[in-house]
Amino acid sequence: MRLVCIRAEGRARHAVERADGLHEIAADPGDPQAVAALLQDPAAALPTGRVFDPARVDFLPPVLSPGKIFCVATNFREPTLPDRPAPEYPLLFTRFADTLVGHGQPLRKPDESDRHDFEGELAVVIGKPGFRIARESALAHVAGYSCFNDGSIRDWQKHSTQFTPGKNFFASGSFGPALVTADGIDPAALRLTTRVNGVVMQQIGMDRMIFGIDWLIAYVSAFAPLAPGDVIVTGTPTGFGSSRTPPRFLTPGDVVEVEITGIGTLRNAVAAANVFVM
Amino acid sequence: MRLVCIRAEGRARHAVERADGLHEIAADPGDPQAVAALLQDPAAALPTGRVFDPARVDFLPPVLSPGKIFCVATNFREPTLPDRPAPEYPLLFTRFADTLVGHGQPLRKPDESDRHDFEGELAVVIGKPGFRIARESALAHVAGYSCFNDGSIRDWQKHSTQFTPGKNFFASGSFGPALVTADGIDPAALRLTTRVNGVVMQQIGMDRMIFGIDWLIAYVSAFAPLAPGDVIVTGTPTGFGSSRTPPRFLTPGDVVEVEITGIGTLRNAVAAANVFVM
Repeated sequence: MRLVCIRAEGRARHAVERADGLHEIAADPGDPQAVAALLQDPAAALPTGRVFDPARVDFLPPVLSPGKIFCVATNFREPTLPDRPAPEYPLLFTRFADTLVGHGQPLRKPDESDRHDFEGELAVVIGKPGFRIARESALAHVAGYSCFNDGSIRDWQKHSTQFTPGKNFFASGSFGPALVTADGIDPAALRLTTRVNGVVMQQIGMDRMIFGIDWLIAYVSAFAPLAPGDVIVTGTPTGFGSSRTPPRFLTPGDVVEVEITGIGTLRNAVAAANVFVM
Repeated sequence: MRLVCIRAEGRARHAVERADGLHEIAADPGDPQAVAALLQDPAAALPTGRVFDPARVDFLPPVLSPGKIFCVATNFREPTLPDRPAPEYPLLFTRFADTLVGHGQPLRKPDESDRHDFEGELAVVIGKPGFRIARESALAHVAGYSCFNDGSIRDWQKHSTQFTPGKNFFASGSFGPALVTADGIDPAALRLTTRVNGVVMQQIGMDRMIFGIDWLIAYVSAFAPLAPGDVIVTGTPTGFGSSRTPPRFLTPGDVVEVEITGIGTLRNAVAAANVFVM
């Protein structure tokens, strides 16, 4: 089941994506309780009977306002790089919801920097709430998976040891298009490809992950209660712009695609800050 | 004007603290639009006529669910330490709202660590929204000030370079009691004292801040739009538990007080994790 959040006829709506269109469901994306109920039991979603044409709506992130977004840096054993001993713990940082746009929406390249970078990643969305979740039962807390571009402003990321500024520029990353419910998905079998203007920049299988999804859920929930809609973004492989020689940063007009087999393709063009009305 | 958020008769309420009690006002702490209106124009708050006895209510953080909480590490020129060159940028990290309890509520010492530390700080609450705010006009965006205990789990803070886990344990810090509106407050004249079980542990004047409140608002809002209720926590002086020889970590039964002249005293006892019902 593919859940989306769209803006159509002036307001945000949840819908189920099928071959014949986007079938609206009754959950209001702005109502935290409705979203929580939807993510805990997506199959129970009530169709309203309205169907939207995906070509005529704006896609929003599949969860519009996650309470918590945790992101992991790197996190892959790279087939093309020498093996290094795995660290004991991942690098974990946070993003605010307004740093993310939906599929098809412009990524905002800020005037403050010319080092806007892309990072294709797999996002895990929590369905069942939990605190201090055991690793063995962690995957039962997953509502589904989506694509994520952990867009980063590299110079601001390096202002101090803490990544916060560089990872939290308004509209600098993206999330979507759909949340694909966990039933029938084997995360380890997924393969991620990131392209810029059609050129493959990153490619990895999720079986190369160092800290797996179950481990990450157990680790994060040891300190933070997880609620439906919370997101854990699982890290990026090498090939992002600043890892390349010469570096490849984004400029207005570039198109970034994050494709994950069985999940979908998240596509965003980059736009100059001055096209955004605040 | 001293704004508080309390739980009384089973629900959260905003009130104005006066010598004769807590005068309830109509803004619902769970309604983001009502809270935004209140923080943009506190003087316009409508009293309901109900008055609560502060001894008979539970204090909640004065802003119940800030959209964004940014925290700065250290940030003081210490009178008792040799002067070091100031860094170019502050260490900036984030906390989630559920890491904080209100005045008088127990701080949760997690079972996962014996390195629960205290950090007394001045919290700045945003009133007027803004993005890319100029330093010159930054203070006009402040609704008011409060006390903050940036409770930290030191070993988890050092799992990697990123402070996220150690700064985001559930109920590990506190915020309150009141938000004191900015009118008539000169932040540079404020003096902070942190005590544990009555013993002074930290003491500093806000005139010793390296990155001032105006600078921090301009810096953070360069990347993150700020909304009413967002919080910038301005950093802690030396004297926190892990800076001491021997270290002084918190254990159940300890009482931490963060007092700021003209703002108030935030007092919390530490409790074992097993007294918290999740």
